[in-house]
Amino acid sequence: MDRHKLIQEMAVDNGSKIVLLLLDGLGGLPLEPGGPTELEAAGTPHMDALTARAAIGLSEVVSPGFSPGSGPGHLALFGYDPLEKMIGRGVLEALGIGFELQPNDVAIRCNFCTLDEYGNISDRRAGRIPTEEGTKRVELLRQIKLPEVEVFVDPVKEYRFTLVLRGEDLSDQIADTDPQRTGVPPLPIEAEDPAAEKTAALLRRWWSEANDILAGHPPANSCTLRGIAKDPGLPFFPEIYKLRSAAVAVYPMYKGVARLIGMDVIDHQAETPAEQFEVVKQHWDAYDFFFVHIKKTDSYGEDGNFQAKVGVIEAVDQALPALLDLQPDVLIITGDHSTPAKVKRHSWHPVPVLLAADTARFGPPTTFGETSCSQGTLGQIRHVDIMPLALAHAMRLDKYGA
Amino acid sequence: MDRHKLIQEMAVDNGSKIVLLLLDGLGGLPLEPGGPTELEAAGTPHMDALTARAAIGLSEVVSPGFSPGSGPGHLALFGYDPLEKMIGRGVLEALGIGFELQPNDVAIRCNFCTLDEYGNISDRRAGRIPTEEGTKRVELLRQIKLPEVEVFVDPVKEYRFTLVLRGEDLSDQIADTDPQRTGVPPLPIEAEDPAAEKTAALLRRWWSEANDILAGHPPANSCTLRGIAKDPGLPFFPEIYKLRSAAVAVYPMYKGVARLIGMDVIDHQAETPAEQFEVVKQHWDAYDFFFVHIKKTDSYGEDGNFQAKVGVIEAVDQALPALLDLQPDVLIITGDHSTPAKVKRHSWHPVPVLLAADTARFGPPTTFGETSCSQGTLGQIRHVDIMPLALAHAMRLDKYGA
Repeated sequence: MDRHKLIQEMAVDNGSKIVLLLLDGLGGLPLEPGGPTELEAAGTPHMDALTARAAIGLSEVVSPGFSPGSGPGHLALFGYDPLEKMIGRGVLEALGIGFELQPNDVAIRCNFCTLDEYGNISDRRAGRIPTEEGTKRVELLRQIKLPEVEVFVDPVKEYRFTLVLRGEDLSDQIADTDPQRTGVPPLPIEAEDPAAEKTAALLRRWWSEANDILAGHPPANSCTLRGIAKDPGLPFFPEIYKLRSAAVAVYPMYKGVARLIGMDVIDHQAETPAEQFEVVKQHWDAYDFFFVHIKKTDSYGEDGNFQAKVGVIEAVDQALPALLDLQPDVLIITGDHSTPAKVKRHSWHPVPVLLAADTARFGPPTTFGETSCSQGTLGQIRHVDIMPLALAHAMRLDKYGA
Repeated sequence: MDRHKLIQEMAVDNGSKIVLLLLDGLGGLPLEPGGPTELEAAGTPHMDALTARAAIGLSEVVSPGFSPGSGPGHLALFGYDPLEKMIGRGVLEALGIGFELQPNDVAIRCNFCTLDEYGNISDRRAGRIPTEEGTKRVELLRQIKLPEVEVFVDPVKEYRFTLVLRGEDLSDQIADTDPQRTGVPPLPIEAEDPAAEKTAALLRRWWSEANDILAGHPPANSCTLRGIAKDPGLPFFPEIYKLRSAAVAVYPMYKGVARLIGMDVIDHQAETPAEQFEVVKQHWDAYDFFFVHIKKTDSYGEDGNFQAKVGVIEAVDQALPALLDLQPDVLIITGDHSTPAKVKRHSWHPVPVLLAADTARFGPPTTFGETSCSQGTLGQIRHVDIMPLALAHAMRLDKYGA
């Protein structure tokens, strides 16, 4: 039973509007026993007031104990099972720098590294050279040409860069060359199936020339190739759900992920939540579904900056009335995973969800936080179920069976 | 892993008794934020008192956001995964009028329609002719005979009727002929696999003769064939669970579904819940499992009549002592789906469940309602797990594995 086909068959377009407000890494932890989480510490009068006409709960993103990367977190939220579908790391890295990936491109996440006199890796990150140094070397690498394919090399940050091949019959079935330890040479570039042999040969040629060029530029005198990947060719979100869909994101990676599943990505200059909501307002009539991505909750969580994460949540709450004024039929506020400041990384903790709709099973009014969500009438759900629930509450899903 | 085989292997017959009291469409919604649902608004002192020796919770019928039809809702409750097994629409329609379907019958849900002078459908429901008019035409259609098969034509309501073919080697792999729009002719009757060619030929012949007969009886001068289906051949409930099982239902469809899975259907004149419980009492010794189906909670929900739905729930509660006096080892009170008066249709909201048994993990005494169930010790369960739980609490399931 193809779940997306099933949903597509039940989906109807009734013109109702859904907003998915995503605070990246929203879920948190108390710093001390008895203390509040970031969301609980934040003053969020508008979200709290919404609980009187919303169902709240906690949502499992992938599977208990699994800390999702940005790819799986977003895929799950958009209704693609992240245990079945994966966006390769090379693709995510290219999307992250705003590279406009085409469906048959092969994208590779590369690290500059240092080789010693015996050709063994002595530093897998080339002494973490600054971005400026990385960029200089990327420019040198751009002179490498390959037969019949276009080659794109772009800096990411410090020792990281992307390599993209564009052409016919390219495959991503090629193993990483980073041996994940020092004192050994990079692994050979090897096709994992015969159809990838052509691509592997091209990459071997590129890598050989790259080494010649980089030889004179230590400590970044070589590089490794990782996460070799193509667009996974996911079924398109607007078609599955019958929603004209738009993303209002600030960071390239999230725009890229939205583009990958066929959403329109609205071009804008907004930076703050309030500005992002203004963009939604400007495009309100043109779309049925808005994905609004707030990045900095996650960034501050990763920095371990509890107070700054609280501040971003408060800024979102302060701006919220502008979004509520548009009267979406369904408003969902959640995250793609937890990023508790206490652990300074993506974590596995279920994420708070607020689903406001006339058809929500309202609980008693409360605050929006992890503890109240653990008692909420939405119960414990899974991220892949959020889109079907959103459609249902927007009265966009017909009955299943007679 | 065949789940039914597994349960059958663990099941033991110890003579204990289980009652499944189903209030169709039980789950509801508050009309206004802060208000009660239908179940919460109803005065249910007996159910509330039961919570002191019962576990309560909320149950997902099919999948979050999916609004189950009657078929999937009942299948799930009886332990058949509704994403794997489906009762076809033609079968449900035939069961709904009390037609005694045999295992190899092909059942079809037909609509009278109006064809214009070019043979295009101008009205898919023939002006919604009254039941009396539909019945007259059904009687005319009964004169059509087909070689080697028996043909049954029966009125349903207004423009709807059923056609059943009974004979050897009949197949239901035939597409609907309703084009779902007007201005085009009905779709041709086409076999979806070669084994269905014989049945398709019979249906083409029947349809051609039907058109000749109906030509003189506008606006219902033709008909479309939909939901062509056979008994799905489900494994029998009494055998899977080792329960002598009986249905006490008032409406034909639910009797039909019970018969489809091998339950005995008790013949009775009961109409009210109190009368239905009396029927259970009369047959108490003859069965281990009683499925008691209360219809009107759903009907009033679909009408949007909150108060009348409340009234049915109260009538059930008032009659409940008669059922409790029988001292079933396990009593389950739940629904096959939610039908909130607020949305006037089957909905996707999880359904309250009360499971009373000596082995229930009792929570603090409370009331029986959606909000209390969202906090109950039974937690969030799935409908397909209700029967295994019932067997377990009846001490009818052996250990799984050593």
